[in-house]
Amino acid sequence: MIVHEIRKGAYYDSVVLMQLQKALVALPDVVDAGVVMATAANREVLAASELLPADVLAKADDLLIVVKGESEQGARMALAQVDELLARRPAGTVATFRPKSLATAVAQAPSAQFVLISVPGRYATGVAKEALDLGHHVFLYSDNVPLADEVHLKHMAAAKGLLLMGPDCGTAVINGIGLGFANRVRRGSIGLVAASGTGLQAVSAEIHNLGGGISQAIGVGGRDLKSDVGGITALQALDILKRDPHTTVIVLISKPPAADVAARLLRAAQNAGKPVVVNFIGYAPPGRRIGNLLFASGLSDAAEHAVQLSYLEPPALLPSRRPLRGYLRGLFSGGTLAYEVLLGLQAVLTPLVSNIAITPAQQMADVMQSQGHTILDLGEDVFTQGRLHPMMDNDLRLRRLRQEAADPEVDMILLDVVLGEGAHPDPAHELAPAIGTAVQAGKRVVTIVVGTEEDPQVLDSQIERLAAAGAQIFPSANEALDYVYNRLPPVESAYPPVPLTAFGGRGLTAVNVGLESFAQSVRGQGGTAVPVDWRPPAGGNEKLMAILAKMKQQEGG
Amino acid sequence: MIVHEIRKGAYYDSVVLMQLQKALVALPDVVDAGVVMATAANREVLAASELLPADVLAKADDLLIVVKGESEQGARMALAQVDELLARRPAGTVATFRPKSLATAVAQAPSAQFVLISVPGRYATGVAKEALDLGHHVFLYSDNVPLADEVHLKHMAAAKGLLLMGPDCGTAVINGIGLGFANRVRRGSIGLVAASGTGLQAVSAEIHNLGGGISQAIGVGGRDLKSDVGGITALQALDILKRDPHTTVIVLISKPPAADVAARLLRAAQNAGKPVVVNFIGYAPPGRRIGNLLFASGLSDAAEHAVQLSYLEPPALLPSRRPLRGYLRGLFSGGTLAYEVLLGLQAVLTPLVSNIAITPAQQMADVMQSQGHTILDLGEDVFTQGRLHPMMDNDLRLRRLRQEAADPEVDMILLDVVLGEGAHPDPAHELAPAIGTAVQAGKRVVTIVVGTEEDPQVLDSQIERLAAAGAQIFPSANEALDYVYNRLPPVESAYPPVPLTAFGGRGLTAVNVGLESFAQSVRGQGGTAVPVDWRPPAGGNEKLMAILAKMKQQEGG
Repeated sequence: MIVHEIRKGAYYDSVVLMQLQKALVALPDVVDAGVVMATAANREVLAASELLPADVLAKADDLLIVVKGESEQGARMALAQVDELLARRPAGTVATFRPKSLATAVAQAPSAQFVLISVPGRYATGVAKEALDLGHHVFLYSDNVPLADEVHLKHMAAAKGLLLMGPDCGTAVINGIGLGFANRVRRGSIGLVAASGTGLQAVSAEIHNLGGGISQAIGVGGRDLKSDVGGITALQALDILKRDPHTTVIVLISKPPAADVAARLLRAAQNAGKPVVVNFIGYAPPGRRIGNLLFASGLSDAAEHAVQLSYLEPPALLPSRRPLRGYLRGLFSGGTLAYEVLLGLQAVLTPLVSNIAITPAQQMADVMQSQGHTILDLGEDVFTQGRLHPMMDNDLRLRRLRQEAADPEVDMILLDVVLGEGAHPDPAHELAPAIGTAVQAGKRVVTIVVGTEEDPQVLDSQIERLAAAGAQIFPSANEALDYVYNRLPPVESAYPPVPLTAFGGRGLTAVNVGLESFAQSVRGQGGTAVPVDWRPPAGGNEKLMAILAKMKQQEGG
Repeated sequence: MIVHEIRKGAYYDSVVLMQLQKALVALPDVVDAGVVMATAANREVLAASELLPADVLAKADDLLIVVKGESEQGARMALAQVDELLARRPAGTVATFRPKSLATAVAQAPSAQFVLISVPGRYATGVAKEALDLGHHVFLYSDNVPLADEVHLKHMAAAKGLLLMGPDCGTAVINGIGLGFANRVRRGSIGLVAASGTGLQAVSAEIHNLGGGISQAIGVGGRDLKSDVGGITALQALDILKRDPHTTVIVLISKPPAADVAARLLRAAQNAGKPVVVNFIGYAPPGRRIGNLLFASGLSDAAEHAVQLSYLEPPALLPSRRPLRGYLRGLFSGGTLAYEVLLGLQAVLTPLVSNIAITPAQQMADVMQSQGHTILDLGEDVFTQGRLHPMMDNDLRLRRLRQEAADPEVDMILLDVVLGEGAHPDPAHELAPAIGTAVQAGKRVVTIVVGTEEDPQVLDSQIERLAAAGAQIFPSANEALDYVYNRLPPVESAYPPVPLTAFGGRGLTAVNVGLESFAQSVRGQGGTAVPVDWRPPAGGNEKLMAILAKMKQQEGG
């Protein structure tokens, strides 16, 4: 027997709703109960538990209370107690004075540097703006915040030198205090930047369990690394950890970012001057270790490597190297080497084109003409019709090499020389003069030589002759990529750096707007949390909210 | 001054063309020369070197000879010598008797087990068919072979228990003898399967340079792992190395395979009973090490790990475990754990659906109803409107858990329990009874617990209570995946196994059709190569070829 009640446009804290549901189920004669905002998804959940009343006329922002009883009378009796149950204070809550507004709370706690926001998504933007206007970093737990609001909030924060973690930011650990959902972990030298809440929890917990510790763990929200947002918060967080003297190893965790955002982020990471463990879960890694970047495969792998690296001496600062100043052109005979180099470069260099494009955007318009950064596989079918493979016949490659060497926009030329049975008997003999010409024209020629000392071409003498012509020689694509990565110029940020004042030292003071449990856990960890007794503007009435917002805007303008 | 000559529909070996071009350039008064089949790409190459004559009327299968001279007279004199230059035998070639047909050659070398084919692509299918009909494994170097031909040839080979390596197979090392392009490497216990020629070369050379050795290296061709071909050769090769007693570690190299092919291949690899290092370059790895699979990031990483593994004791055979017999359902509170598990499972289990689909095909029709293997992130925005996150409120998950436990098609249920500040104070208390019910219904409940001993929920006691209810407990998604991988049933092959007779022992006898240099290098390595003095059927005339093929078919039918 199901009975129900609808409370139109009513706002209740989610904790209150959960507690009401539990209290209803605990009543005599009640079999099951559901207390939810009547969204489509929540109604389906009710339906799956046979709790959805027939022809119920509730809207998404109505509260729907359903009780299934042994009898209709029992169910109705339960429903009649809702107001009484709602009025109960949750156990452990002490009735103290609570500021009603963020501004009052901030005035009450002048040392607060963070505002934690966990109000429902539709109210979150307004609260976050207010917090930023008051000059505070924001930890925005709320989800269901429109993407456009996120973009706006993040630009606003970054321009002020403030950090907006979130929205949908599950986790952070700042100065040893966990915000939102966070495992208790020891402090240490590993700094985390994470788009994903559980990812950050899993990695930080595993680091702790492996004996390592966390300096700062900064959540950025699940959409930060999408193109629209552009990784604003992640770039700020990375920059904080780069400057933070207590951080010796950085870990970067996210689901696969947009390609352009990944490239920016990896460029920033590559210039961090510290080892950075990257785990873009589900992203094709360009290699295992390139430059100061270690690409982990999975959360556990990331945690293990971060701990290992944290035990090592910090790497010596690399001597300054001439950064890439023009385009890079790869002329490959080996398709897989070309592919591996393309994969490695696309992670950090855009735009990039190729005749073996990995993404449609990389497809070359004309394979005969390089444009920007270009990787060519000269062994592709189109080049080998009625012509020997470039491993046997260097003619095509030599012509192209001369063409690239004459291009004033080119800085680096990448080649491979694949030795072995079946291949050209003496490739260095043919390539060295053209390499020499390119080097004299100011190009850097990076050459990957694949071979063994048993190969008929004599590996050592091939390397010697190529090196004598001025080529940089590497035994693998990975090491050639390492050379290139270490010469990528830093990316400039459009925003001022976030001051380190709020990051470092012990403890933290925060103003909390929303879930009471988040304030409690800050206090439980030795931090200070000032709760705001937040209510939705206009009692949650959307029309009234819009009018209020307009009035406020005019007042401000 | 450019002069040119067109030879209509003429066939010449690519080596001959390269040598002619070099000979022309070496003549007095010649500045540059081009000798190519007049394909669009080759004409563009000529144009780039200012060697393309104006309004030249050559077709793709015409030979185009271009000479640029100091003077017109010099150029014309060079052109007049073409026939004489073509008639020259390349240095080092000894005029001995050469069988004119494959059948004669095979009769002459009854111990030959391989036929190497490097004729131009349009003739390759016919030669390969003949070789398979004669009962030989084929190493098909030729590229530009139509995809449909490849599919047909591979089905034909597999049905006969023969291996067709290629087309566009650059490399193999069989019984210590390199075929096509191959580095000289010591023999050892590492077996390679590679879709890519240079990838195989780079990895085998690096293994050698690191002190390791190769048992067999089997090339499968660049398109073998596409959906149309379905990895036929790779699966055969993997099976050979699995049974080969000299192979203790297997390395699998390819550009990213089609998802369905990757899944089949990884399932086969996962049942190899030996460690398998997988390097699908540009593929998002499901983890670093899962079951017997190690996912390498890059060619160097693959080589390093193969060598390390080859030094270790072979792993003990795992005790037999009850293989997965029904569907797997994941009910996650942590989005990233859900994502990592989805990523891990999609590598080996298809079809698979989710509300956080990585590929469009994975998108669930109805998030309220699981179908087949299903991974659910219950913390997604749609589930948290007006409702607490499942890390705080277990209600939704408990309802779903009971639903899955009641489904007779379900074998395994995957859960996560994320402890820490902000999370539910005692999740095990609420979850254990429902887990117990599922276990009693015959389900296996795999639970990932994220936490530290400092967390307020007391990690140990949470684990204890979940385990007491019958859950399998793991500290990470990676270890949970390991549990699942080790319980995947083997995949059945539609084809008979390839007999190991041709693989093992020292040396090899091959019949060579095409590039003379490939036969020379087999001999240079101590193998035996019988060359066929191959000419295109009907002198390369397409129409005549079609008629001949038809006549042959009727004869056979």
